Amino acid sequence: MDFTIKQIASLLEGNIIGDENAKVNQLAKIDEAAKEGSICFLANPKYENFIYTTQATAVIVKDDFQPKQNVSTTLLLVKDPYIAFTKLLEEYNKLAQQYNAHQRIGIEQPSFAGKNLHIGEGFYLGAFAYVGNDCEMGDDVKIYPHCFIGNNVKIGKGTIIHPGAKIYDNTQIGQYCSIHSGAIIGSEGFGFAPQADGTYKSIPQLGNVIIKDYVNIGANTTIDRATIGSTLIQEGVKLDNLIQIGHNVIIGEHTVMAAQAGVAGSTKIGKMCSIGGQVGIVNSVQIADYTQIGAKAGVNGNVKKPKTTIIGAPAMDFKNFMKSSVIFRKLPELQKRIEQLEEKILNLPPSKG
Amino acid sequence: MDFTIKQIASLLEGNIIGDENAKVNQLAKIDEAAKEGSICFLANPKYENFIYTTQATAVIVKDDFQPKQNVSTTLLLVKDPYIAFTKLLEEYNKLAQQYNAHQRIGIEQPSFAGKNLHIGEGFYLGAFAYVGNDCEMGDDVKIYPHCFIGNNVKIGKGTIIHPGAKIYDNTQIGQYCSIHSGAIIGSEGFGFAPQADGTYKSIPQLGNVIIKDYVNIGANTTIDRATIGSTLIQEGVKLDNLIQIGHNVIIGEHTVMAAQAGVAGSTKIGKMCSIGGQVGIVNSVQIADYTQIGAKAGVNGNVKKPKTTIIGAPAMDFKNFMKSSVIFRKLPELQKRIEQLEEKILNLPPSKG
Amino acid sequence: MDFTIKQIASLLEGNIIGDENAKVNQLAKIDEAAKEGSICFLANPKYENFIYTTQATAVIVKDDFQPKQNVSTTLLLVKDPYIAFTKLLEEYNKLAQQYNAHQRIGIEQPSFAGKNLHIGEGFYLGAFAYVGNDCEMGDDVKIYPHCFIGNNVKIGKGTIIHPGAKIYDNTQIGQYCSIHSGAIIGSEGFGFAPQADGTYKSIPQLGNVIIKDYVNIGANTTIDRATIGSTLIQEGVKLDNLIQIGHNVIIGEHTVMAAQAGVAGSTKIGKMCSIGGQVGIVNSVQIADYTQIGAKAGVNGNVKKPKTTIIGAPAMDFKNFMKSSVIFRKLPELQKRIEQLEEKILNLPPSKG
Repeated sequence: MDFTIKQIASLLEGNIIGDENAKVNQLAKIDEAAKEGSICFLANPKYENFIYTTQATAVIVKDDFQPKQNVSTTLLLVKDPYIAFTKLLEEYNKLAQQYNAHQRIGIEQPSFAGKNLHIGEGFYLGAFAYVGNDCEMGDDVKIYPHCFIGNNVKIGKGTIIHPGAKIYDNTQIGQYCSIHSGAIIGSEGFGFAPQADGTYKSIPQLGNVIIKDYVNIGANTTIDRATIGSTLIQEGVKLDNLIQIGHNVIIGEHTVMAAQAGVAGSTKIGKMCSIGGQVGIVNSVQIADYTQIGAKAGVNGNVKKPKTTIIGAPAMDFKNFMKSSVIFRKLPELQKRIEQLEEKILNLPPSKG
Repeated sequence: MDFTIKQIASLLEGNIIGDENAKVNQLAKIDEAAKEGSICFLANPKYENFIYTTQATAVIVKDDFQPKQNVSTTLLLVKDPYIAFTKLLEEYNKLAQQYNAHQRIGIEQPSFAGKNLHIGEGFYLGAFAYVGNDCEMGDDVKIYPHCFIGNNVKIGKGTIIHPGAKIYDNTQIGQYCSIHSGAIIGSEGFGFAPQADGTYKSIPQLGNVIIKDYVNIGANTTIDRATIGSTLIQEGVKLDNLIQIGHNVIIGEHTVMAAQAGVAGSTKIGKMCSIGGQVGIVNSVQIADYTQIGAKAGVNGNVKKPKTTIIGAPAMDFKNFMKSSVIFRKLPELQKRIEQLEEKILNLPPSKG
Repeated sequence: MDFTIKQIASLLEGNIIGDENAKVNQLAKIDEAAKEGSICFLANPKYENFIYTTQATAVIVKDDFQPKQNVSTTLLLVKDPYIAFTKLLEEYNKLAQQYNAHQRIGIEQPSFAGKNLHIGEGFYLGAFAYVGNDCEMGDDVKIYPHCFIGNNVKIGKGTIIHPGAKIYDNTQIGQYCSIHSGAIIGSEGFGFAPQADGTYKSIPQLGNVIIKDYVNIGANTTIDRATIGSTLIQEGVKLDNLIQIGHNVIIGEHTVMAAQAGVAGSTKIGKMCSIGGQVGIVNSVQIADYTQIGAKAGVNGNVKKPKTTIIGAPAMDFKNFMKSSVIFRKLPELQKRIEQLEEKILNLPPSKG
């Protein structure tokens, strides 16, 4: 798909300096070896040097950009180059998705479908995918190869289940979700009752997982079903890869969680929280709305006040942690200073008190 | 399946206040929207308020429970509501499992079985499952869709291999184990010999994995096979999701390990240990029996004394860590106090010593 | 396959004390119950006692080994027992691989191949594997059961894709790589643009993943594709299990990374670095060549100087961290000493200044 700079300028409401008829067919990064036929953007001034040497056909720049050297590429002047490029990405992606939605349609063989499968229009079931009994699929649901869908699963309109994801019985997934490859939804929670002799007995896990609309579940992320009731992932939640969500956890609307974080059983996380990579949160606590948790934090208690920012293990106020961390590095020096003080005190004349 | 409160009271050896003929068909949590037809339990006093408003048909309570307001739901009085409810869960689960064992039986097609497959009664092989040559399966083994079983694998009676688990060649799995979705058993250990030029050469990994009876392996957990000999998971071990077990590791009987923990190669962990989430243990160390390791600990040496409790990275005695952590938060204040002491000392009259 | 000690001595250029015609067919560890017919090695003096009781038919020992008791097993004297045993392992492995390469050949059915699949000699496609359109496979590529290969994927000579790995569209993989079970290559990066109302919008991820020659990707490891351009894993990189690599990350030649480490988007890691288990590295930083990062470190900034060794969260110089950690354990004592100093100062005669 070739586009002229003029076409793109019209989409982005930008002005052109250079050849408006030049054609591009690829998006590229200005600091990598962008080839002829590609279009880049310059938002961060520290990458400015690349604009004087790039082989890219065109570069999107801010409308007040003043070149310090000759520029041979065509410039496309816009109000905000980053936003403009994102818009371009989206348009490109829309075309790609339309292409994909058109390609991935119908039932590939061999695949396996149980009794009472209800499907909408535009449904795709990839080869080697397995769907159990009594499942309901909305319009444009795409189930890629090697997915396992248990019995009595409901999946909403426009949701994509990527290759090899496993969805256990009774799971409910909303509209326009992405469940990425290798994600395991609804596996048995880690519930074991200690016995008097030191062994453990499984506690039956009879609940399910409910995932609302516009949720993203990353690759190889695991979400356990509830013991009873539901593990609940609210609308708009974005989970990265390799995350663990325990049984009966509730994650509030539009909370995002970075890779390799883990949340233990029965914890409730508020809405619009931001949780860093490799964070761990213990079981049965409550995290207030808008909480920010820094990477690698170990959260071992409730966060009661919304908009709190914490980090560290055990987690504490972010700023205080940073201050304490700076002093942690100086502990050998501090210890020495205490020793010196002790020596000085020892050498003082005896108190008269 | 509907049950009367009378039937349940008989099972739990409880007394009824209310309608003994009321029927329930669902287990629910008292703090969630329990509907008519469901039965809940009240063990934790902080949930008592829910008993006055719940729509649940019956609630299991302790036999000395004194309501402070009118209760419209039927009460079932027992000695220990939590234990009673667990018993109910188990009975329910037993029925569900019987149903499942009855459903999941026989060989679904298409599936793939190599030469010399020995199977017992009640065997299930799901569609798209792959079994290599010379495998032995006990009675009631269930291999769900998309599982890969390599050559020369033995699986004991009653063990369930959930959808998409991968079991490499020569693995031995005992009786009544659960291997959850996406678990990888017996993959190549991470063995690379550094060469003089800074590159690495693979060390052949010729061993296997042995898993004893009553073991639980969580979703997407990985267990590497031994370089030579066996990586060994002893009877009753419970591993949560996304755990990494390195080559030649030995985990003792009835040890439990929470999600995202990792154990590096050749480490030996004792029996009945409890290991928290996101813990890391270095290679080639020994952890004594009954060791308790707190979440996120980084264990970089042997634990010689049984029943030790450690946490932190590097790991140390639990109580001392907690004390030190409290002071870590006050480091800026401590530094200030040292500065003040230094100032005061400076301002003192010169020592006569 | 039986070998005489004489044959093995010839391979390892060693001398025999004992029965040169004794036969072995198995490699074993001296500290485990090695049976007759097996051969072990003794490199670490702390295992010497085992040599006097082992049932192994032969043991490889250093050429200056002086037994302190009677030895009934045959001894094979070499310059370096560990290196000799490794050589033996390799020879054994070579035979096993030849056997395997010979076994795993051709197209198992049912499998799925799209349009325009180009394959080389010795190609294996396992049952239930799925290959999209326009893919190119070099000689001796082995694609095990349950693998998903998207459209337009190139895989170089001798590379093995283990059971259930998922390779998204447009991925390029070099020669002699191992992609282990459950690895997800090229899934959608975690890119979400925050909106004014607190919700998030997906940023299209249009790039791909490029993996060079001799790379090892561990079980259940996830590598996200680039937003635009390529996520790049350079030649000889070894990634362990359950690792997360974000979009647009670059990992330099022969860098090794232990299990459960994570690297956030757009970070560049130099060559021949060594990165410990459960390390986390934030997005958009640069790590110099030959950097050593200790287990569980949290790296939140650039590492500019090659050969730096860091650990801790936030990461700092390794030696300083160890010194500070020692004092961290003594913080309660330090606090007490400060209190004592304060008391002593209080009790001093007032300053005349």
